[in-house]
Amino acid sequence: MTTIIHSVAYQKGQRLGDIAIDDISEVVKQPETFIWLGLHEPDDALLLKIQEEFGLHELSIEDAHHAHQRPKIETYSGSIFIVLKTAQLEQGHVVYGETHLFVGSNFLVSVRHGASASYAQVLERCEESTKMLVKGPGFALYALLDFVVDHYQPIVAQFEKDFDAIETDIFKGQFDGLVIERLYDLKRRLLELRNAALPVIDISSELIRLHEELIPKELRAYFRDVQDHVSRLAGLIDGMREMLTTAMQVNLALVANNQNEVVKRLAGWGAILAIPTVIFSLYGMNFQWMPELKWRPGYPVVVAITLLGCVFVHRRLRRAGWV
Amino acid sequence: MTTIIHSVAYQKGQRLGDIAIDDISEVVKQPETFIWLGLHEPDDALLLKIQEEFGLHELSIEDAHHAHQRPKIETYSGSIFIVLKTAQLEQGHVVYGETHLFVGSNFLVSVRHGASASYAQVLERCEESTKMLVKGPGFALYALLDFVVDHYQPIVAQFEKDFDAIETDIFKGQFDGLVIERLYDLKRRLLELRNAALPVIDISSELIRLHEELIPKELRAYFRDVQDHVSRLAGLIDGMREMLTTAMQVNLALVANNQNEVVKRLAGWGAILAIPTVIFSLYGMNFQWMPELKWRPGYPVVVAITLLGCVFVHRRLRRAGWV
Amino acid sequence: MTTIIHSVAYQKGQRLGDIAIDDISEVVKQPETFIWLGLHEPDDALLLKIQEEFGLHELSIEDAHHAHQRPKIETYSGSIFIVLKTAQLEQGHVVYGETHLFVGSNFLVSVRHGASASYAQVLERCEESTKMLVKGPGFALYALLDFVVDHYQPIVAQFEKDFDAIETDIFKGQFDGLVIERLYDLKRRLLELRNAALPVIDISSELIRLHEELIPKELRAYFRDVQDHVSRLAGLIDGMREMLTTAMQVNLALVANNQNEVVKRLAGWGAILAIPTVIFSLYGMNFQWMPELKWRPGYPVVVAITLLGCVFVHRRLRRAGWV
Amino acid sequence: MTTIIHSVAYQKGQRLGDIAIDDISEVVKQPETFIWLGLHEPDDALLLKIQEEFGLHELSIEDAHHAHQRPKIETYSGSIFIVLKTAQLEQGHVVYGETHLFVGSNFLVSVRHGASASYAQVLERCEESTKMLVKGPGFALYALLDFVVDHYQPIVAQFEKDFDAIETDIFKGQFDGLVIERLYDLKRRLLELRNAALPVIDISSELIRLHEELIPKELRAYFRDVQDHVSRLAGLIDGMREMLTTAMQVNLALVANNQNEVVKRLAGWGAILAIPTVIFSLYGMNFQWMPELKWRPGYPVVVAITLLGCVFVHRRLRRAGWV
Amino acid sequence: MTTIIHSVAYQKGQRLGDIAIDDISEVVKQPETFIWLGLHEPDDALLLKIQEEFGLHELSIEDAHHAHQRPKIETYSGSIFIVLKTAQLEQGHVVYGETHLFVGSNFLVSVRHGASASYAQVLERCEESTKMLVKGPGFALYALLDFVVDHYQPIVAQFEKDFDAIETDIFKGQFDGLVIERLYDLKRRLLELRNAALPVIDISSELIRLHEELIPKELRAYFRDVQDHVSRLAGLIDGMREMLTTAMQVNLALVANNQNEVVKRLAGWGAILAIPTVIFSLYGMNFQWMPELKWRPGYPVVVAITLLGCVFVHRRLRRAGWV
Repeated sequence: MTTIIHSVAYQKGQRLGDIAIDDISEVVKQPETFIWLGLHEPDDALLLKIQEEFGLHELSIEDAHHAHQRPKIETYSGSIFIVLKTAQLEQGHVVYGETHLFVGSNFLVSVRHGASASYAQVLERCEESTKMLVKGPGFALYALLDFVVDHYQPIVAQFEKDFDAIETDIFKGQFDGLVIERLYDLKRRLLELRNAALPVIDISSELIRLHEELIPKELRAYFRDVQDHVSRLAGLIDGMREMLTTAMQVNLALVANNQNEVVKRLAGWGAILAIPTVIFSLYGMNFQWMPELKWRPGYPVVVAITLLGCVFVHRRLRRAGWV
Repeated sequence: MTTIIHSVAYQKGQRLGDIAIDDISEVVKQPETFIWLGLHEPDDALLLKIQEEFGLHELSIEDAHHAHQRPKIETYSGSIFIVLKTAQLEQGHVVYGETHLFVGSNFLVSVRHGASASYAQVLERCEESTKMLVKGPGFALYALLDFVVDHYQPIVAQFEKDFDAIETDIFKGQFDGLVIERLYDLKRRLLELRNAALPVIDISSELIRLHEELIPKELRAYFRDVQDHVSRLAGLIDGMREMLTTAMQVNLALVANNQNEVVKRLAGWGAILAIPTVIFSLYGMNFQWMPELKWRPGYPVVVAITLLGCVFVHRRLRRAGWV
Repeated sequence: MTTIIHSVAYQKGQRLGDIAIDDISEVVKQPETFIWLGLHEPDDALLLKIQEEFGLHELSIEDAHHAHQRPKIETYSGSIFIVLKTAQLEQGHVVYGETHLFVGSNFLVSVRHGASASYAQVLERCEESTKMLVKGPGFALYALLDFVVDHYQPIVAQFEKDFDAIETDIFKGQFDGLVIERLYDLKRRLLELRNAALPVIDISSELIRLHEELIPKELRAYFRDVQDHVSRLAGLIDGMREMLTTAMQVNLALVANNQNEVVKRLAGWGAILAIPTVIFSLYGMNFQWMPELKWRPGYPVVVAITLLGCVFVHRRLRRAGWV
Repeated sequence: MTTIIHSVAYQKGQRLGDIAIDDISEVVKQPETFIWLGLHEPDDALLLKIQEEFGLHELSIEDAHHAHQRPKIETYSGSIFIVLKTAQLEQGHVVYGETHLFVGSNFLVSVRHGASASYAQVLERCEESTKMLVKGPGFALYALLDFVVDHYQPIVAQFEKDFDAIETDIFKGQFDGLVIERLYDLKRRLLELRNAALPVIDISSELIRLHEELIPKELRAYFRDVQDHVSRLAGLIDGMREMLTTAMQVNLALVANNQNEVVKRLAGWGAILAIPTVIFSLYGMNFQWMPELKWRPGYPVVVAITLLGCVFVHRRLRRAGWV
Repeated sequence: MTTIIHSVAYQKGQRLGDIAIDDISEVVKQPETFIWLGLHEPDDALLLKIQEEFGLHELSIEDAHHAHQRPKIETYSGSIFIVLKTAQLEQGHVVYGETHLFVGSNFLVSVRHGASASYAQVLERCEESTKMLVKGPGFALYALLDFVVDHYQPIVAQFEKDFDAIETDIFKGQFDGLVIERLYDLKRRLLELRNAALPVIDISSELIRLHEELIPKELRAYFRDVQDHVSRLAGLIDGMREMLTTAMQVNLALVANNQNEVVKRLAGWGAILAIPTVIFSLYGMNFQWMPELKWRPGYPVVVAITLLGCVFVHRRLRRAGWV
């Protein structure tokens, strides 16, 4: 059964060792002990087993069955249920996963769905700071939240790079359909990440305000740190969203401007070309009595006048910015 | 009288059996008993009868007479009046109905108007979990709310499919009047569903906060679950609305861009065609002394120069992206 | 003096009869009695008389002198002053009026300005329900508010009809200046009605919260009903405003689209016409040595080639959607 | 020293008479007495003197030195500091000034900067209502606020007139650069006035809520009246701002529409002119064997066909709305 | 070690003198004494030393290590951690720095990163007002905040100048790509400054509300002054942002308008030129029986008619505003 990633018991901040699922309900009864269980896409049987061992609420288990929840925190008697969106960069693309957490006074169960880094390293890092782990699953919960939020960071950085590239392209004069598609696509991705990250602020805030038994006073600063981290990312995302909207307008304005230039040029050159067109067709008429036609220097004189007219009009239009 | 869909009495979570409307006021007096009455578009006489039997407030009955209410919750002494919008997909179209609920400490009356699935299956499902039904009409109310909200889900999914189709069409280059009409229509439908679904959050919240006698502590998590469900849908709807607005801008930008291309091409080819036009009309003039005309290779030379000129200009314009 | 529409005293819900203005201060002293006075555009002398008889606050009388107030509620010691906007449809146009109400524990004075239906029918309707009228001027106040709000309903319905007509015209292809003017005008009218109706929610809310002596518990549901009614209208208005903004964008998009089509066609047909233009001017040149000109079938062959060229280009452009 | 506009002491609502600056600290000690001092752009020495006499806070004096504050209220121990923006219409232009008020339990100091009407008339008007003046500087403060807010009224009326003129011009067909500049300019002026007026609501609200010692219960209605006045103006301003944004869009839509018409006409007439162009150049070719050229009625027949073709195409295009 | 800018101890508002880092923990214990330490980009060793000496929280030190925090305030047991963004104008460009503050009841540590003026002058200015310095690090904190906020002022002024320049250019007719880029760039810079300055309001507010031990009642007015200063700047920034958005629309409208004019002119002159084109090509036809051609005054008459036609059409179009 590879879906159980780790199942460890801790006592007074020290690792007691791995324990079997069936022993959980017994170990949990010991004082100053808590169990940290990590699952990856468990099947229904395992989930029911877990529900029984920890006495979890029916509704939270129902939610844990199907992914595609939005990030939230639900308080049941005896346990808290938290849903988080995890995000990772894979070959330049953002892939989302989901992590469900069941937290009680002496247990923390994490259930990973879809793309997300394993929480094994979170476990290791926590075990290093025994001092904090003494405080029970609250610190482990912080470590997990922090880990999830830390993974949003490189994605926002990637989005910023993408946005800068778009911006540069637009002002370089490349404001075609492709740039618009890239703008649109980035907006969609920003919205998606925002929806994933923002609820973490409310989740942390509710943990601090309502769950004193789980988050002792000394840990509050840590959860506020997580909130702060998300706020900063949300600020960056919202800044980009506002600038994206502006960039879309800028694009439209530049296209309009460009077309204006083209139309002006079209009109300008049309004016210049009107001169030979009219003059040449004038002398293409077949009247018998057209004295100029019989005048010897007629041809060069007319061509010269035409050329001079073109040059004159060209100069005037150039000064007015039309050609 | 087919408008009475069901009229059942429950005692300690067990079905006592169907009861006649006239017996209601008596049965209701028994301890730990509640009556669940389901009506479909009742006439005035029946509504007045119901009002009398349960002692409902005049204003709520007035509201129940005519549909086209907005979803809301009203508290009267002795009973709560709730209006819900029901929605169903029928051949790809969303049809809306309305359900009015009268809830008291020992009764639940549902009145369906227009399109909505029968609540008979809700009844059946509730009867299966006797443990919850013991808690009185509160659980039945949850089951109804949950049923109504569950029906919003496939509609949102349908809207997402529609939106994806529009998006694909736009970026494939099909940004004509029809796409705009589809965008507009989707926006309108999103607004409609949002107005139907969103008030359920406030209704649930008021039920949890203000009606402890009806919603015991154990049931709160269930109503929060309903809230959460609606929040998720509202989040999806709002995300789509934002992207729709952006898509409208994108469409405009693409049209502008496209026109720009057309105008540039028009100008570019106009420039190329100006060459033969001017040269050919030049030699169409009827001057007697035009030495080129009598020059034997004049004709092929002029045509060749014209062609070369066209090719040269075409190349330069192509490099500049004008043709 | 036709400005006094009615001046009636009620005792325990029963009409005592009409009373003269000068007797008011005496009648008002009797227990369980209240006076309902209805005025229409009274002069200054009458207003001062009223102020004296009921002991109204100087500031409220000042406000009552000049219309063009925004809807509001002001609490003075001993009386409440309420300003309402009344609205009516007259030959398809909305005309606004203003009603000022002075309400005390034993009197209700209504002062109508401009367009509004007479409140005489409100009076009659109230007298029918003696049971409610016992509760004093609170119920009369509700009846007036309800009457005013009921008159907003057909106006919103009219606006919806107007909006549907505009919508249909736009998508039928009629997106000219007239449609834009109609959109603009509707937006302005929606804003106006919204400003008139929305404050009633706050007025009702303040009456319920702060004036228990005037609005006994049994009447609260009635005022909430008024609030609910206005909320529904405001919801409809806001929905229309959002769709109006979208319709304006849609209009712009359709115009842009249409122009795009025109420009494309212009370019397409220009390309086709370029063929005969160039070929015919080619053979209009006057070179002496142009062998084709002396070739017998030259003329029909050139015309045929030209025609074939046109047909060929036309077909290709048609396939590309340019002509 | 002309910067002291008035310096008057009042006792029990009666004017005691003018007093010298140096006597202030003595007079102020008398019971039921307050001093009303009016300054106009005082120099530093005078301000320091005033600070000393009334015991004002260092920070408020610092603020009073330089104008260009935003409207605000600051509470210091012993005195309140209020900044107001005054506005006046001068030859159709709005000019702004600033008034700083220092208010204590027994004094009111007003310092005017820039354009504003003298407060001497406020003084006079206050002295007429001795009854209110008994209440101390609170009523004087109200009178000043009311005076300042009353001066915003004609400016908003002027803006409404300007906006109506712009609106009329736009729909009359004059949607050129000048109208856009007028729209833009009006928006800027609206924003400016809004920033000046809106803070008065907060200032009044804070005075009512937090300064009971200064604003006795009987005066509260007066300050609410001021709030109400500003709210009404703010409502008008915000309505105009929303309609201005819409007018900008309308303008763009009308320009787009107009251009569409022009382009369509251009295309339509181009199509008509294509007929003679092609036909005439056809018979301008110099082929020796062109039988039509030798046919006697050739010339009038060709001209007639050309004319008929033009008329036919013109009719069809006219029906389609292209010419 | 040049990263320690100053390290001074104060007792009862008087400078005790510079002290070494290692002596801090001892000096700090003395009553009515506080230490003001100023660092510039310290290395890790120094930060750890500081943490130890003052007993700072691990998380705040972690934050202090890496810059690019957003402005915030964090409360730890025994100390407050504040992050501020500093901004300076350097050759017309805004450069940002960051300052981290650790504040306790008897110490103030400032850590500067990146561009910012030295706080040495703040120190000097504080030492001059011994009266305030007696109140401990609260006043020093105010002085620092005030100093940081004062530096935002010239930047906003610079932005206003830039915006005015853009505005003037737009209405002068220069609405090209460069202006759009300048608008876009200004919007970005405004957003950046806003994000730097706005959090100072919350920081000050939290200091006043929650840290009475640090900010005694007499100092509150000072922190409110800082808040007020930032509010004013934020108001200016938001006003500019709104006008920038409008300016972008104005630009688009002017471009559209301009193009409209160009297209109209193009059409107008095209109409005028159509006259000679058609007439001249008419008489360029080679029919043998064209009586006009043999009519002696044919040529001058035709040219005269053509000219008259052009003049006539030109006049009519000029009146209609087309040429």
